[in-house]
Order: sequence, then structure tokens, then C-alpha cells
Amino acid sequence: MSGNRAVAYKEPGVVEIIDTDYPTFELKDGPGVNPANVGRKVPHGAILRTVTTNICGSDQHMVRGRTTAPQDLVLGHEITGEVVEVGPDVEFIKVGDIVSVPFNISCGRCRNCKEQKTGICLNVNPDRPGSAYGYVDMGGWVGGQAEFVLVPYADWNLLRFPDRDQALEKIMDLTMLSDIFPTGFHGAVTAGVGVGSTVYVAGAGPVGLAAAVGAQLLGAAVVIVGDMNEDRLAQARSFGCETVNVSNGDPKEQIAQILGVPEVDCGVDAVGFEARGHGKDASHEAPATVLNSLMDITAAGGSLGIPGLYVTGDPGGIDDAAKHGSLSLSLGTGWAKSLSFTTGQCPVMKYNRQLMMAILHDKVQIAKAVNAKAIPLEDAPRGYAEFDAGAATKFVLNPNGYVKA
Amino acid sequence: MSGNRAVAYKEPGVVEIIDTDYPTFELKDGPGVNPANVGRKVPHGAILRTVTTNICGSDQHMVRGRTTAPQDLVLGHEITGEVVEVGPDVEFIKVGDIVSVPFNISCGRCRNCKEQKTGICLNVNPDRPGSAYGYVDMGGWVGGQAEFVLVPYADWNLLRFPDRDQALEKIMDLTMLSDIFPTGFHGAVTAGVGVGSTVYVAGAGPVGLAAAVGAQLLGAAVVIVGDMNEDRLAQARSFGCETVNVSNGDPKEQIAQILGVPEVDCGVDAVGFEARGHGKDASHEAPATVLNSLMDITAAGGSLGIPGLYVTGDPGGIDDAAKHGSLSLSLGTGWAKSLSFTTGQCPVMKYNRQLMMAILHDKVQIAKAVNAKAIPLEDAPRGYAEFDAGAATKFVLNPNGYVKA
Amino acid sequence: MSGNRAVAYKEPGVVEIIDTDYPTFELKDGPGVNPANVGRKVPHGAILRTVTTNICGSDQHMVRGRTTAPQDLVLGHEITGEVVEVGPDVEFIKVGDIVSVPFNISCGRCRNCKEQKTGICLNVNPDRPGSAYGYVDMGGWVGGQAEFVLVPYADWNLLRFPDRDQALEKIMDLTMLSDIFPTGFHGAVTAGVGVGSTVYVAGAGPVGLAAAVGAQLLGAAVVIVGDMNEDRLAQARSFGCETVNVSNGDPKEQIAQILGVPEVDCGVDAVGFEARGHGKDASHEAPATVLNSLMDITAAGGSLGIPGLYVTGDPGGIDDAAKHGSLSLSLGTGWAKSLSFTTGQCPVMKYNRQLMMAILHDKVQIAKAVNAKAIPLEDAPRGYAEFDAGAATKFVLNPNGYVKA
Amino acid sequence: MSGNRAVAYKEPGVVEIIDTDYPTFELKDGPGVNPANVGRKVPHGAILRTVTTNICGSDQHMVRGRTTAPQDLVLGHEITGEVVEVGPDVEFIKVGDIVSVPFNISCGRCRNCKEQKTGICLNVNPDRPGSAYGYVDMGGWVGGQAEFVLVPYADWNLLRFPDRDQALEKIMDLTMLSDIFPTGFHGAVTAGVGVGSTVYVAGAGPVGLAAAVGAQLLGAAVVIVGDMNEDRLAQARSFGCETVNVSNGDPKEQIAQILGVPEVDCGVDAVGFEARGHGKDASHEAPATVLNSLMDITAAGGSLGIPGLYVTGDPGGIDDAAKHGSLSLSLGTGWAKSLSFTTGQCPVMKYNRQLMMAILHDKVQIAKAVNAKAIPLEDAPRGYAEFDAGAATKFVLNPNGYVKA
Repeated sequence: MSGNRAVAYKEPGVVEIIDTDYPTFELKDGPGVNPANVGRKVPHGAILRTVTTNICGSDQHMVRGRTTAPQDLVLGHEITGEVVEVGPDVEFIKVGDIVSVPFNISCGRCRNCKEQKTGICLNVNPDRPGSAYGYVDMGGWVGGQAEFVLVPYADWNLLRFPDRDQALEKIMDLTMLSDIFPTGFHGAVTAGVGVGSTVYVAGAGPVGLAAAVGAQLLGAAVVIVGDMNEDRLAQARSFGCETVNVSNGDPKEQIAQILGVPEVDCGVDAVGFEARGHGKDASHEAPATVLNSLMDITAAGGSLGIPGLYVTGDPGGIDDAAKHGSLSLSLGTGWAKSLSFTTGQCPVMKYNRQLMMAILHDKVQIAKAVNAKAIPLEDAPRGYAEFDAGAATKFVLNPNGYVKA
Repeated sequence: MSGNRAVAYKEPGVVEIIDTDYPTFELKDGPGVNPANVGRKVPHGAILRTVTTNICGSDQHMVRGRTTAPQDLVLGHEITGEVVEVGPDVEFIKVGDIVSVPFNISCGRCRNCKEQKTGICLNVNPDRPGSAYGYVDMGGWVGGQAEFVLVPYADWNLLRFPDRDQALEKIMDLTMLSDIFPTGFHGAVTAGVGVGSTVYVAGAGPVGLAAAVGAQLLGAAVVIVGDMNEDRLAQARSFGCETVNVSNGDPKEQIAQILGVPEVDCGVDAVGFEARGHGKDASHEAPATVLNSLMDITAAGGSLGIPGLYVTGDPGGIDDAAKHGSLSLSLGTGWAKSLSFTTGQCPVMKYNRQLMMAILHDKVQIAKAVNAKAIPLEDAPRGYAEFDAGAATKFVLNPNGYVKA
Repeated sequence: MSGNRAVAYKEPGVVEIIDTDYPTFELKDGPGVNPANVGRKVPHGAILRTVTTNICGSDQHMVRGRTTAPQDLVLGHEITGEVVEVGPDVEFIKVGDIVSVPFNISCGRCRNCKEQKTGICLNVNPDRPGSAYGYVDMGGWVGGQAEFVLVPYADWNLLRFPDRDQALEKIMDLTMLSDIFPTGFHGAVTAGVGVGSTVYVAGAGPVGLAAAVGAQLLGAAVVIVGDMNEDRLAQARSFGCETVNVSNGDPKEQIAQILGVPEVDCGVDAVGFEARGHGKDASHEAPATVLNSLMDITAAGGSLGIPGLYVTGDPGGIDDAAKHGSLSLSLGTGWAKSLSFTTGQCPVMKYNRQLMMAILHDKVQIAKAVNAKAIPLEDAPRGYAEFDAGAATKFVLNPNGYVKA
Repeated sequence: MSGNRAVAYKEPGVVEIIDTDYPTFELKDGPGVNPANVGRKVPHGAILRTVTTNICGSDQHMVRGRTTAPQDLVLGHEITGEVVEVGPDVEFIKVGDIVSVPFNISCGRCRNCKEQKTGICLNVNPDRPGSAYGYVDMGGWVGGQAEFVLVPYADWNLLRFPDRDQALEKIMDLTMLSDIFPTGFHGAVTAGVGVGSTVYVAGAGPVGLAAAVGAQLLGAAVVIVGDMNEDRLAQARSFGCETVNVSNGDPKEQIAQILGVPEVDCGVDAVGFEARGHGKDASHEAPATVLNSLMDITAAGGSLGIPGLYVTGDPGGIDDAAKHGSLSLSLGTGWAKSLSFTTGQCPVMKYNRQLMMAILHDKVQIAKAVNAKAIPLEDAPRGYAEFDAGAATKFVLNPNGYVKA
């Protein structure tokens, strides 16, 4: 119960394994901790021994130096763990439970939490609604790419798996419940996907693939995934999606070839602000490309789910507008087609129990769909590098050996 | 039954009363009629003697020369009438019925109509989903600012008032059912307004005032209306709204003074693409101002209803982006707050019967709220001019003397 | 274009193939035609050459003599056909189209149709809202278990299949779109089934099996089907359902064995008023058994979808209450658990296009699930008898040879 | 901090003021406390000095001896209070806050609470989902018709009023937020009331009147209230409702006289299991009368909201079925009309914040509508008696003198 090995951001392009403190039931000062949160008591928290913790695309924004993340920030918001200690206020969660942690930290007491909007909890981040573990400007809750991690408001936040053995057996699927599976699913839900829908998912990274899986689970008739990374597109095809390679140009024509019409019912943006252009413009960033393309190819009356991250400030933006989080959007097109748009963090708690049920009853194979691969905690730097280079792989860190070869 | 006096667009800034043809059950060639619609048979249509027909802010876009509207286009999509003739396929609507005409023309047979999305009917406009009477690029259905007008698919499109005398007595309220009352109400509904909501409506023109009335009808706790026209703001105050004058600067601080917090639950954009800046920038157009301001002042988790018109092309736009209907939007702000956005024409048929019931049972005084004023058809040019100059008045043309002084 | 062979009800237990009139665009007098509908003009109708027409469990109520159906009533409300003639008012449907006919007849002009409530159209049945082909007390629209049939309001009612060859290839699946697939799906939807739900479907007849398929398509984690007919239960197991045989007693204990808990999230009643008791009471009718059992086994907060038919009068009811359509329901139990209940005909049009998409894109095998079997029109009496005897088969009549062996 | 005066049930027809213990942060044994709850620690609780606590119609079921309530059960689940002490786990609620207590006790940690179904919390009542203060078979949480009361899970359960002075000024309205206003509103919401609806509310007691107010707040065009108590009907008329006296017979004909049609869009049952017959049958109980009447008068496609209480066992039921909570319901009628039904406790937390906003901003006068009258705690026996005798009054106990004359 002494130390704690963890993955930390060092500088642009560099993450390292560091020694850090074993958690206590108090949020102590450290890299990235909001001053107003320093010293916050967490008697409602649980300490988890990490079972799995995944590398996320949104971590890459920090690692690439596209944010103001400080040195030694411990990363990691996709966490599954075993409860090893509970604070004095914890009533229902027990030591020994295997649990999934929603990446959004929420209090379970504020207006937004009561309305299932746990992505914008009012009580956990002094700066603004919403928080996450191990993320810049999110209040300073310590990340979970570590051997141990503290989860506040444990009775509220934690999703307990009903059976330990079953959980460990399906752990590579269940680990996706902390973020990307609900996030992709939320993208599909807010895009209006239902039985018989035709769907276009922009982006074949893990969230895009999870959105595609989510769309299938919701009964979509056809799911088309677009990207310019052929390995990732192959991954999408492996579980029944159609694909378009946007480096061959605007997806509209390719969609027409697949569906017979150049438009879909529902569009999902699983790319976000680091989007690149299509076709011959694919070599440089063009942050509005995905949204403008989705407005073009989504049929009148459709909806766009936008789980892809857009930020309020991007020091690495291609121009002044991008640096301030502004995009040049063809809203006229959207308006003429009566489109709707839903943005923001997925409120994981709204979906994770249901998706757990689908996993436990073998209705979905999310690990296979995203090509999940477990690696030791010590290999995190390699995982970050390979993922950043475009590997069609979702890396799952295995800090305590729960995942067997 | 020979001629037909009508209001026509002549050139930027000029409308005139012209003599035109009495309608027949066929869409004949004429100014702005889509070639693919020329000669279209309309046995399902009804010919109405116009009871009332209102001047709409969206007509002003054409009159100001901000569109490609051709000379002699007959204007008018806000129509209430008496049925004087029905085509051979009409089964339920009868001669003598007093009816409200949804401004969106729809077929009642396509997928979108079956899903209540009558603003994007697939069968009435050869160019794209959605149509309206007397509007440029909407298929060429002749406008209703005239003594007589043809309404296609009459059994589907027309809302019959249950009692003729009652209808004529409340005609100044009921005339708002063809467009602005449902349109404003749709703005409030899609902004998520419910019992107890706090609401900000950008724009105190007739649609903005109707959105404010709609928000009240939905049970809003506080409705704040913003504009820079003091007469229109006074109009908003006349029925219980709070107001902010945006020429005094960004509305955020004024909202804080009213509510104690600088944000609202729900935002409505009742301005659209001809928006002007706030505060010292109020003298020139700044098309993204309203949406960016709404993203700023709407609380996390809120929704924006956007009934204000955004266009795909605007020859008078302030810059190249605006000319192509692109706006520089702070989507990063919206995303961080998990906002949702709903755009597009209001599908009038989804709301008009219910709003009629509210009017007939004296639950709402929409005519008074928008300061409706009946004027003779011949005075339409004056009405257009005064409205364009900012009169806090909704002009209702009275071509056949149904409205008594 | 002379005659028309059709299946007619003769007397309790007896159906026969009769010669009847080829349809015209007028509803003529005949067995079961409501006097107020006699002579009704149908210029908006289409005449179909029947491709397939299925025998439905609700037909059996008439054939068993449990209704006041008159002699020579032509049966059949599950119809798929080829358009051979259209009335003068038909604009979009064309001769040669292969189309599915929703069993609910609706006008596409009334308030209810505009709200997607086509099961309770106000304009087609003079007696009360709602109508169907070939059914007692439903207005008198002639049934479709025939070589030819008239469909009113064809542009509104008919769902056109996009490709003729594809349609005929998948016809055994597509034929289920006229009734049981949407009906079962509606049961699942109104029971609140979503991704991860646990579901109990009472009844393993075709509607029950379709509800089970629908629940799977909606993402249910576990679907349990209950019946006392082992062949039908085997059919349910064939596509991945769990089953309970209610002749072994109340389903609660068996559900507990399957799920670990004695309750489900969602309950579907696919039995209706001719329900029998459970366990040792299985030999006699007990019309409230299914609903009371569902209230018992559905978890607090759950919903019950009730596509199973309950009638206002049942001459064969077991007691006076049953004869008048009254049931002794444990509403106290339902109330304590905050249950919700949705009854009534499925509004087919709300679902058929989406379910068609799922079929055409191979996301569902409904024909296999219900064990569909095509037989000649002349064999209808045998089909009725075998189905009534409990065959685990959905009989599809093939009056014109479209279905190839 | 020594004693605590409280209203207790003594025997059928008798309530008395007794001396009882001042609350502590533990649920101690006492009349009606579930053994499994005895000794339960409540560090998450708050102790309130009662500001107001209302007598509820559902208390009357106990007082009339229609339940198994034990002697000395402290009554009262409609509580507004000032926080005087908080347990060690309470983080956001502060001493001095004026708060409304939802009558449903809920934990804020279970699946149902996370889904806003606080009326069926899984963790507060060992017997079954759902609980309430001072109510038989609800776990044993001590009632609040007392000077002081303990509220568990205070951060979750309590609704804090933003301003103390404003709260005390509007206390007679705000006191209705603990139960009847949300309960009536929930009845209206689940009956599908929206802008323009026509609504029938069965029962003009406080919940019925609150449902009527709720329906108005939701924008109903016409609200009709039925009862056989003329004083209560006069109360309904006082705020703009239409009324029917059901002792004059079935409400159908009277509704037709008011609306021109014999049916409404939405029906609310604010009576429950102690219903009496209509017309000449009004002198005796007929527990299914209200629901059967509502099925008769609600238009096809409508919904029934059922906030009126139905119980699983009623020792005073008129027959065996009633004693077991079974009702003879004309489900055939409901099915033919495609009706939906929603039962159960109102999840107060889903609505109380919004309704508070409506009160604070003067959008609704609920106290006036239900004729609220403050009386001293000592006068509770008289309040119970007068209310049981049919007084058109909502009695509000004032144990600590917060309510000024």
C-alpha cells in the first residue's frame, strides 16, 4: 500500500511511467489540480486496484501538446478496477467488487446529475460543469493509468459487475464501458439511429468503431464508416460495416455507390477538432471538414451526433479561429435540411448498465470490433506512440496482471 | 371569378399590387415557378378566398434583394381563407370552410410527411425537400398575398376552424397559425422549454414575440427577449417578458441582473442570418453573433431552438463565407457545454391544431402580443416599408374585407 | 379482370374458398359492410393482385365463432401485392409496384393519421376509430385473402418496395410487414425494450415470436418467451430466445432460474383475451391471467406492451364480465410498481419502412423465426385448421403463384 | 433539542398529538419500522425543524382504518423544513437552508434513482421498491407531522429554496411541492396533457385540483374536473376549470355539453381505490368506476394518468376482489381505443425544481387553487376530521410558527 506506478505526461510527444502516491481520501495538490479542489475531502470515495485502463484518443490531444496539460499530469480516464478500500460514507459498494468507472466524474447530488446529465456535473470541477480523471482543466482528479486510483462519490459513480469471474472473463469487452463504448453509442443515439437507419460514422478510430457497433446494436440497416486509414477501415469491415476512404474524396459519391442514394439518415462525428480535409486536402487539418461533410450527406430531417471533441482553445490550431475553437460551418445547408446537432461528453452513466447487459449476454463483441490489445503498464509509451501513428488497435493497460495472456 | 389582385416583388425595395390570374387546379408557368412543376395538375387542391394574409419577416429577405427572387413573384405564405372551390379529389374539406394554411406545402404521402416532418416534404419542390407559397426557390407555388390562392393537397394541408363565426371573431389571432405562432412555438419547443424554464429569445420581431408567447404557454418561469429596437422590446414587456437591449452590449450581464445568474436554460434564435453585432458593433451585420451569444448564455445541457432563417446563399452577405451561408461558430464552447441545436422550418402541422385550441379557449392572446394590425391589400407596400423600418407591428392584409374595423 | 377467388368465413369452424367480385373503385354492399360505407367512392384506391396474404391469429377469433362476423365475410388483412390498377386520384403509386399493405386502413387526412396513429383513423370506419380489411365491425373493407383486393388511399397506405426482384426474393420475410412484424415490434417498443433489456413475451404464436424478434432487434439482452405449446417454444429457441412452459406453473420461478432474479424489465402480452390459466389451470380460459402474471413479473418501473387483442364483447366469454370485455386485474400490484400499459392495434405505418430496411439489409430473419410456410389459396381451410390446432407455423397464402417453391 | 410533538395514528378514525423522540442519525425501532431497517445508520441525513407539513388524502386511508397501520405511527409525508443539523456525510446542504422534502424517500445511488424513478428506489424499503415518510409498509421512516423530522440522503433528497425570505413569503405555495403539486402535475404529464389539450380530472380533492392546475400550466385548452362534492367543484371553478357533478350521472353527457363532443384528449384519475359510483350509485364504493369511466370518455389514442392510489390489499374492500386489490376493468374498451395507462407514485424529484421555479416567478397559485389553510399542529385531529368530511380545504400544519397569520 505504499507506492503507485502511473503513466504521466512529460512534454509534447512524451509520456513516462512515474512513481506517484498511493491515493488517499483527499484530493491533494499536484500537477493540474485546481486550487479550489486542493484538500477536498473524499470520504465518499473508493480506492481501486486497477484491473484495466485504456489509452484514449482524447489523451492524445494532451500528449501531442495541443493543450495546456502540465508536466507529470497522471493520465487515464478509462478505468475498470477492483475496490480495495472504501471511505467512511460509502454504503453500497464493497471491497472486492469489480467495477467500471464512468470517465465523467459526477457528484450524484446536483441538478444535472439528477437529470442524468453526468457529463456536466456542477460540483466536481471548480472551473465549469463537467470533469474527468487525468485530464487537463477538469478539476485535477488524478488519472487512472496507474496501479491504484481514487474514485469519488463511489456509490453513485461505480457500476458493479454482478459476478467477479464472469467479469474477469469478459474484461476486454467490459473495459470499454468506461468511455468509448458508451461514447460511441451516445453518438449513435443522438444521431437518431434506430431500427432500419442508414448511418455514416466519420472516423474509424476506437470511438468511431464503437459508434458503428452502437448503431448496429440499435438496429441500423447499414453502417458506413469513413476514414483515410486503411487498417482502421479494414477493422470496420471486419464486423459488417461498409467503408469509404475519404482520402479518395468527399464521401458523398461513395455513399451513393453503397446505398443507391447519396445520403444517410444519421451522421456521427467521431473525429472532432483535429479533422483533416478530404481527398487532395487530406494532408492538412481542416477542423470544419467533418461537420460540413456530415451536413452535406445527412438527409433532410436527420440528426448529427457529435461525440468527437471540439475544444474552446487549441494552441496548435491552424489559424486564429481554430485556436479559439471557432469553425466555419455551413449552417445554411444544415438549416435548409432541418438538421439537429447534439454535442458534448457522453453521460456514461446513462448507458453503461445497459451496454454491460448486452456484453454479459453476448449480444455484442466490442473488444473484437475495436481490436483491443492488453499491454503492460510499462509499455504505455509504446501504446501511445503506436496509437498516434494510426494503429488500428485499442490499447488496454494491464497494471496489475488481471488480464491473462 | 375572373381576376386576382396580388402583392408582387418588383425589385429590391419595391413591392406592388398587380393583377394576376385567378387560380386553377394546375400550377401554370410564371415568375419563379420551377420548370419541373409547370403544368402540374392539382385535383387535390382547394381555391381559397383570402380572409387574411400576413407580411412575414422572411418575405423581407426577398424584398431587400437578399435573394434571387424574380420580378413579379407573388408573395405571401401566411394565409387564412374561405374555401370557394375544391378539386375533384378533395373529400373532407368543403366549400365554405374557414381554414388555416400551413406555410409549408406538403403532400401527405411521402416518408417525411408521415413522420410529421412537413417542412421537408419530398414531393412538392423539385429542387430539394421543403416548400412554401410565394417564395423564391421553393417550387413556384403562387403566393397568397392576393384575393385568391390555390392550396394543393387540401385535405391534408388545411386546418378547418370548427365554427365560422367564432373563427371570424378571433381572426386576428387565428391568422398567426399559418406561420409565426407555430414557428415561434417550435423555437421554444426545440429549445427545450418546459414548466419552470428560464428562456432567452434573441429577436423581438413577430417570430421572437411568438416564441416568447410560446415559451409562456409551455410554462416557462421567465422569458427574456433581446433586441436593439426599443419599440419591439416594449411590445415584449407588454405581455410579461423581461427584456435586454443588446445595443447596450452582450446580453450576459443584463441576464445576470434579471435572473441572478448569467445564463438561461433555453435559447431561441429568432433572428437568423441578417443578425447584427451587439453593443458598439450593432451597426453592421455579424451573422454569427446571435448563435455565438446563445452558446455563451445558455447553461450547460441546454438546447438552442433556431427558427431564425439561415440560407445556403446570400448575395448580400458581408463576406465570402456569409455569401455561401457559412458562419464562424464557437462550437468549442457549445461542445464543452453539451449543447444541442435544432434548425429548420417549423413543421406547422405538428402544432397548429393545438395552438388553435389554445386560441379558441382564450388561453393565449397572440395577436395582441405581436401587435397585429389589419390593413387593406392595397396598403401592402406601406406595410412592407414600415415593417422593414422596424415597426413593432405585425401587418395583416385584409384583401376581401373579412376583417372588420 | 372478371372474377376473384377468396377465403370466406362460413360458420364457426368453417372457412371456404368462394367466388366473389373483382374489386372496383367503390365499396359495394356485401357481408359485413357498414351501411354508411356502402357506395363509398374510392378514386384514391389501388387494386392489387395479391402476392401473399397471411392467416392471422386474430382471424381465428372470427373463425372460432367468438365474434358476430357474418357468413361470407371475405377474410384477410395481411396483404402484399402488385399494383394492377390505380384510381384517378393516385399520384405516386404506379402499376407494377410491389407493395406492402398496413392492415390498419387509414385516410392520411385526419388528426390521428397526422399524428401517426393510423390504427385509430377517424375517417374509414363509421362505427368508431380504426379499421382493417376483412374484419368484423371494422367498416366493411373487403379482405385480402383473395386473388385481388382494393386498397383505399393508396398513396398514403402503401409501402413500395424499392426493387421488384429483391422484393420477390425476400417475399416470405416482407409479407410479415403487413401486420405481425410491426405488431410484435410495437409490443416490444411499448414495453420499453431497449439495448440491454430483459424481456418476457407471453405467447409464442406468430405475434409473440415477432415480438421476440423485435426485442432482439432493439438490442435486448435476454428475451424469454412463455407458452404451453412445446412446438412453438422450440420455435422461439431456434433463434436464441429462452423459454418457459407455463403449463408447468407460473413463469416467475422459471424466470428466476434463467435470469437469477424473478423479474424482467419489460413485458409483452401477445396472447390477448383468449388466454388460458397457468399450471394446473391451463385447461380453461382465464382472460386476465396473462396481464396479472405480467404485472407480477415485470420489475417496478417497467412497461407492458399489449398487442394481444382484447375485445369489447365476446359472445363466447367464460362469464358475464368476459362477455362484456371486463377483466379482473390486480391493478394494486401494478400501481405499487409504477407500471405503465400500452394497448391497441399497432399503427403499422409507424414501423413498416424501418423494418423493411432491416429485412432488405439482412439484419433480421422474421420468416424463419415464425416458421413461415407458403400454401396455395385453395389450402386456406387446412391452414386455418392447422394453425388453430397449434401448429408452430405462420401460413402464407399464395393466390397468384408469386411465391416459388 | 429534547422532545418532539407529533401527529400519530391511534385507531380507526382517531389521530392524536403525542410526544415522541427528537430524531437522531439512526432509524430506531418504533411503530411500523421494518425490522430490517432498525438500527440503520443515517450519517447522510439532515434533521429539519418543520416549517410546514400537510395533511394528505393518502393519510386518510390509514386513518379510516383501511390499512394495517399500527398504533402510534407518526404520520406525515408532506414536509417543508429548515435544516437544523446535518450528518457527517452531508456536503452540500447547510444548516439554515429552507428545503422541500419529496415524499418519496430515495437513496440517489440505485439504478432506479439514476433513471429519475425515485418513487421506486431500491435501497430504502426492505419490503419492496419505494418508500415514504410516516406511511404503513414503507420501511418505517418516521413521519413529518411533527416539530422535527429526519431526512436521509439529504444532499440527494432535499430541494433547497434559493432565498429564505422569499421562501417563507411564498410558503403556502411551496409547501405543496413535497407531494400534491408534483403528484397532480405527474398525473397531467402522464395523461399526455400538452398545449391545447382537453382534459378530464376525476376527483376535486387536493390532488385533483393540483392536477387541474398542472394541466393548465402545461397549456391545456380546457380542464374539466368531476366530483360529487359541490364545495370542491366550486373550488375548481374558482381558477378557471369547468366542472361536472358525477352524482348527476356519468360524466359523458356533461362533457359533451361543455366541449361539444363527449370525450377528452387526456384523463386523470385523482381518486383511486376508494372511488364511489356515479349517479344513483354514488352512495357506495365501486372501485373500478373511475377507471372505467375514464376509458369511456377518453378519446381513442389518449392516455390516462393515474396518480390516485390503488393498493395491493384493502381490508375494508367491498368484496373479495377489492380486498386483494383487483378491479373489474373494461380493458376491451381501452384496447379498442389504443389507450395508455401510467400508474404509481409520482417521482417528485423529477418535477419539484421546475414547479418551484413556476411558483417563485408567480406563474401559478397552487395554494389558492387548493384552498390551503394553515392550522397549528395541535389542531391536526380537527384537520383530519374536516378533510375526511369533505372540506374543500388543504390543511397545512404549522408546528413551529413559521407561517404567520
